[in-house]
Amino acid sequence: MFIKKAEKAFLKTYDSSVFEKLSVTTDLLVFSISDLKTNNYRKLSEKGMSVFLTNREQFPFKDCWSLPGGFVLPQETLEETAKRVLREKIHLDDLYLEQLYTFGEIDRDPRMRIISVAYMALVERSDLPYTLQQSDNWFNIIRGNNRILLRNENNPEIELDLTTSDVLAFDHQKIIEVGLDRLKNKIEYTDLAFHLVPNEFTLTELQNVYEAVLGKKLLAPAFRRTIKSKVVSTGNMTSGSGHRPSELYCYKSDMPSNS
Amino acid sequence: MFIKKAEKAFLKTYDSSVFEKLSVTTDLLVFSISDLKTNNYRKLSEKGMSVFLTNREQFPFKDCWSLPGGFVLPQETLEETAKRVLREKIHLDDLYLEQLYTFGEIDRDPRMRIISVAYMALVERSDLPYTLQQSDNWFNIIRGNNRILLRNENNPEIELDLTTSDVLAFDHQKIIEVGLDRLKNKIEYTDLAFHLVPNEFTLTELQNVYEAVLGKKLLAPAFRRTIKSKVVSTGNMTSGSGHRPSELYCYKSDMPSNS
Repeated sequence: MFIKKAEKAFLKTYDSSVFEKLSVTTDLLVFSISDLKTNNYRKLSEKGMSVFLTNREQFPFKDCWSLPGGFVLPQETLEETAKRVLREKIHLDDLYLEQLYTFGEIDRDPRMRIISVAYMALVERSDLPYTLQQSDNWFNIIRGNNRILLRNENNPEIELDLTTSDVLAFDHQKIIEVGLDRLKNKIEYTDLAFHLVPNEFTLTELQNVYEAVLGKKLLAPAFRRTIKSKVVSTGNMTSGSGHRPSELYCYKSDMPSNS
Repeated sequence: MFIKKAEKAFLKTYDSSVFEKLSVTTDLLVFSISDLKTNNYRKLSEKGMSVFLTNREQFPFKDCWSLPGGFVLPQETLEETAKRVLREKIHLDDLYLEQLYTFGEIDRDPRMRIISVAYMALVERSDLPYTLQQSDNWFNIIRGNNRILLRNENNPEIELDLTTSDVLAFDHQKIIEVGLDRLKNKIEYTDLAFHLVPNEFTLTELQNVYEAVLGKKLLAPAFRRTIKSKVVSTGNMTSGSGHRPSELYCYKSDMPSNS
């Protein structure tokens, strides 16, 4: 009781400027799976990963490609900032979102000391509005020979080589690398892959996602054995497009509880 | 070239107060493996995990147990702050350290909006100076029946039940829970366990670490099969203390490269 009163008195006169405050932002790493639209580079899979970049209209790094981001406002949690950035800059709501890592190098922003809490979002392209599916902001991530290339899906002449420094604004290159590593490490022991396929998918589509994230081909029989416990047949088949019909599956926890 | 000049001009007049700045701290979750010194609670293992807590001398939360922490200074990276806190508050240097998660709830600190970047440190107790090994700041983590108890190693009457709210300062309870989960998830697919044993260890000691972190007993033959590829015999044996001598192992990447 005495303590409570003394604490109240302490808080009333507390000088919040004793320690210098810092600017805090969130940056958004939005990944999806896409068709690899090129064949002048060693193809590991028909499908690849893509990342959503925005071209900066303002200084600093004007005209550079960057991850969408924004300042954390005093009345927002970090996740609320991340969701606001997705809404305002990409017109996206309701994505799978996880906190990735907090980047705090002293000179990462030329304006001032800015600490950035990066979030990773995973989207299934066919869930998006058509204009967003086809947007000029998607870049194929092409990995091989120890380098990572980002190639604009709609304009393959825009190609960013991440082994070269300063091809992206700020430390966004680093954030992409950390995100790719995180996803690669987590895909085998979590259910993250299911955020990257439609609700109903063929096992080949699911295998494509794992191959795109891991950056290597998998053997179908072994893949199917490891994935078996996580999926269940919907009883539906694919139709059309000249292929033999394939069985459609869904993620096991998506099934009604009486099944 | 023109852009570079224009950017310089922009930076010269940039008003860094456009977005309100926030306070940023780091909090340190220091885990080690210890003997469980009690038997009035269901024992899952002879060994358990412990966490290092400090008793707050200042408001807010005066006299409460808390994680050691400190403000991020403008000229420090986040990791530098974490290392400074370890040095200043626990007199520890050179620990395994990884960023855990950034906590940004709006009211997590009664003084003002403070965002905290939590780091997790892993220590092997016998590596520590004797006074630190025996310090009054270590709490056994006792898990079972959906609750977590923290019991002071030197004074079992100090017992904090984490299912009750407000037993620790700030949201430090939440940070401990997130850290325990992280370690549990990562121990099976990383080499984190080796930061919690001495350089030379018996397979039983190593199994004790896995059991303490996972909170369950493991079958020795299965454990030894999974761990085999990560360890190598040193050729040394334990001696003394009335037990049958046991073979000593070390972590495989610790071996000289000519072996």
